[in-house]
Amino acid sequence: MKWVHRHLLGMRDLNAREIGYLLDKADGYREFLDLAPKRKPVLEGYCQLNLFLEASTRTRVSFEMAGKLLGMEVVNFSTNASSLRKGESFRDTVRTLARMKADVFVVRHQSSGVPEYLSRFIPCHVVNAGDGLREHPTQALLDLLTIRRAFGYFSGLTVAVIGDVLHSRVARSLITGLVTMGSRVVVSGPPTFAPPAAASLGAEVVFPVEEAVAQAEVIYLLRIQRERQDAGFFPTVKEYSRFFGLHRLPLKDGEKRVIMHPGPVNRGVEIDSSLVESEASLIEEQVTCGLAVRMAVLETLVLEGRVA
Amino acid sequence: MKWVHRHLLGMRDLNAREIGYLLDKADGYREFLDLAPKRKPVLEGYCQLNLFLEASTRTRVSFEMAGKLLGMEVVNFSTNASSLRKGESFRDTVRTLARMKADVFVVRHQSSGVPEYLSRFIPCHVVNAGDGLREHPTQALLDLLTIRRAFGYFSGLTVAVIGDVLHSRVARSLITGLVTMGSRVVVSGPPTFAPPAAASLGAEVVFPVEEAVAQAEVIYLLRIQRERQDAGFFPTVKEYSRFFGLHRLPLKDGEKRVIMHPGPVNRGVEIDSSLVESEASLIEEQVTCGLAVRMAVLETLVLEGRVA
Amino acid sequence: MKWVHRHLLGMRDLNAREIGYLLDKADGYREFLDLAPKRKPVLEGYCQLNLFLEASTRTRVSFEMAGKLLGMEVVNFSTNASSLRKGESFRDTVRTLARMKADVFVVRHQSSGVPEYLSRFIPCHVVNAGDGLREHPTQALLDLLTIRRAFGYFSGLTVAVIGDVLHSRVARSLITGLVTMGSRVVVSGPPTFAPPAAASLGAEVVFPVEEAVAQAEVIYLLRIQRERQDAGFFPTVKEYSRFFGLHRLPLKDGEKRVIMHPGPVNRGVEIDSSLVESEASLIEEQVTCGLAVRMAVLETLVLEGRVA
Repeated sequence: MKWVHRHLLGMRDLNAREIGYLLDKADGYREFLDLAPKRKPVLEGYCQLNLFLEASTRTRVSFEMAGKLLGMEVVNFSTNASSLRKGESFRDTVRTLARMKADVFVVRHQSSGVPEYLSRFIPCHVVNAGDGLREHPTQALLDLLTIRRAFGYFSGLTVAVIGDVLHSRVARSLITGLVTMGSRVVVSGPPTFAPPAAASLGAEVVFPVEEAVAQAEVIYLLRIQRERQDAGFFPTVKEYSRFFGLHRLPLKDGEKRVIMHPGPVNRGVEIDSSLVESEASLIEEQVTCGLAVRMAVLETLVLEGRVA
Repeated sequence: MKWVHRHLLGMRDLNAREIGYLLDKADGYREFLDLAPKRKPVLEGYCQLNLFLEASTRTRVSFEMAGKLLGMEVVNFSTNASSLRKGESFRDTVRTLARMKADVFVVRHQSSGVPEYLSRFIPCHVVNAGDGLREHPTQALLDLLTIRRAFGYFSGLTVAVIGDVLHSRVARSLITGLVTMGSRVVVSGPPTFAPPAAASLGAEVVFPVEEAVAQAEVIYLLRIQRERQDAGFFPTVKEYSRFFGLHRLPLKDGEKRVIMHPGPVNRGVEIDSSLVESEASLIEEQVTCGLAVRMAVLETLVLEGRVA
Repeated sequence: MKWVHRHLLGMRDLNAREIGYLLDKADGYREFLDLAPKRKPVLEGYCQLNLFLEASTRTRVSFEMAGKLLGMEVVNFSTNASSLRKGESFRDTVRTLARMKADVFVVRHQSSGVPEYLSRFIPCHVVNAGDGLREHPTQALLDLLTIRRAFGYFSGLTVAVIGDVLHSRVARSLITGLVTMGSRVVVSGPPTFAPPAAASLGAEVVFPVEEAVAQAEVIYLLRIQRERQDAGFFPTVKEYSRFFGLHRLPLKDGEKRVIMHPGPVNRGVEIDSSLVESEASLIEEQVTCGLAVRMAVLETLVLEGRVA
């Protein structure tokens, strides 16, 4: 397959064949990650610049490790030590960094659209590592990889996405990816969080949460931002937990059911602590799949991606 | 020798043969460090994660350089950019990082016992880089290496540990290691700092400082935390210096005597500046031995350590 | 040519042959940087420590990337996580870091003379990455490389340096380098900014700005620090722009004229935004030349530099 994209900006840009292609590669890297020592320096001589302008633990470390396992030189850049303070425009900062001959920019920014904006004027591959409320495509791809490794198929599967769909770039990217791959997606949670956009993304809104859960093989819980409480989206964390949290996973006879969460988990809010630890939980496996997916994305863009 | 440990949590876990085994290896690395270029990529394909949740210069840089000289991929993680702020439990953060397939976690934390706690649930090797008031085993090993390279033996040697033994994880680990290796340890300093525990660790309490110094071939000065003054442990820095600081090193006839300090030194408080610079001072050599010891520890755990 | 220096502290230490030697090497690296993949691990097994005690984006990233492309292990050290807070003397901190067997220290510090001070007592090569108001030699070398690649010669060329020459280490190093290479330098800008020292560096002061610009093939604009306004050096940013900013570049018939700026640019203050984007602007090329120059400097010092 010929890879036609130069960047990975969002799941909306990928068709089913392209997603399948990345997942196939990522699957190989997932196996590879169980080895020790593990090193696959196919990207030696290439440079990755992590431009994280919004706090992040797991995503930055995951991208950094992915790049390094592939043999890339990885340089971290965050706002603190930056000349952004000196009043230089963000655009000029990024152009400057690009002129230092980075091959890939991994960008996280609190504003929607920043990675796409950058991709227009820098001569590097851009990977969106999360932009505002918009997209988080490598999270969606890692979720898809986790699901595919658990079930082996997407078509015929129902995924329930529970929680703050409205404010979640994770949900937006995931729903887009799942629908592209032929899964059925139901969203649920507090009605204030169910976005009118859910339907336009191809998901169905189902109330109450129990009903959405009952229909699904994959229960995907979103993280609740506690600051939404003050904004009036839900009354209290306690009530959120009571009405919208997952406290048990009723078994469908003979059928496999799994629980996923993008992390970090608010234990006892979105989900009971015992369920996080249960057999059905793929939450930790998602993390390792994340590393595999990022390796696949970086390798594909750098070695096969369209050049400027 | 078969290495039976999975982690390095404290000196109390190591017997004399094990300490000797690490020091033998470290001695080789110490020689190696005088070369340029210097590279020994025996840990290529392995990943080290530095999890420093307490400020540190020398220890973090030393571990980072040790890992890199061995060919490891090293990723730094500190609290600042972390999702610890987002309210995720520390346990979940660490489990997540472990699932990114790090092979070694190097952990510094202000609370005693954190590295041991982590070691129970993550499938990686854990190296304690200092936990609260408890242990700092690589510091003790580097002190032992420095002493062994200076004297060639432990048994028959008296080491005077002067200062805030009570609050010092460095002292705790060092005394444990020295006693295990057969040295005699005397502790001295302000009586408020001489821990009742000193005896249980195998050291003798000797007053005044001059008497402890007179008995020892190795004078090991601990750093004074100025904040202890406000807590009433000693009246003023000036008086500390006058009564407990080292101002001269009386020579025993024909005998070698050395001065050590874990750094950073408060010149003019624990020790006069001229003594830091004197022939007897091994303070800078301790730093290089630290790099060698950390290389030895990382190599041993990763290549020979028990797996989960 | 035999390289006789151990450090790179300032342009005042280099003669024309030495500058030419570095530029020749840097020119090769500049070509190399257009390759992908690009890797030249001639410094494998050497360690670079970036000691940046003043905020910096481009310079730190540029040095980090330069070192990594040459195969060095690069460790970043900045004040935040440091024991400087613990009251250790800066001298002791640096000596400690040096004893971790770094081969090169890249130092930025807000006080003039710090790199030179360090170079007296640490057994490593020191590269000045900017010290106070004094020197920024790799910036000057990258400017020289950019100019040489654009014109092919220095002698017979006039360079106009416009702006806050008084407070600019960039200007100081650049003027010194240009004069050494045989170019004519004119400085202009607000009279409060024209240093009495300009003449002693070998530059001529020319008013008004238009006249200086008219005489030069290279227009080099310095960054205005807005905090100088409060200090009374110029009335307002708006007036600065009106009287001293570059708004158009009159073409000399048949002659090549270029615009340079060390960045970050205050668009609309020192220079109109359209000129930054114009054909005449070498501002982005300067950034890539910076990477090439740093590779050349690091390679030369480590492989050919005088040892302690």
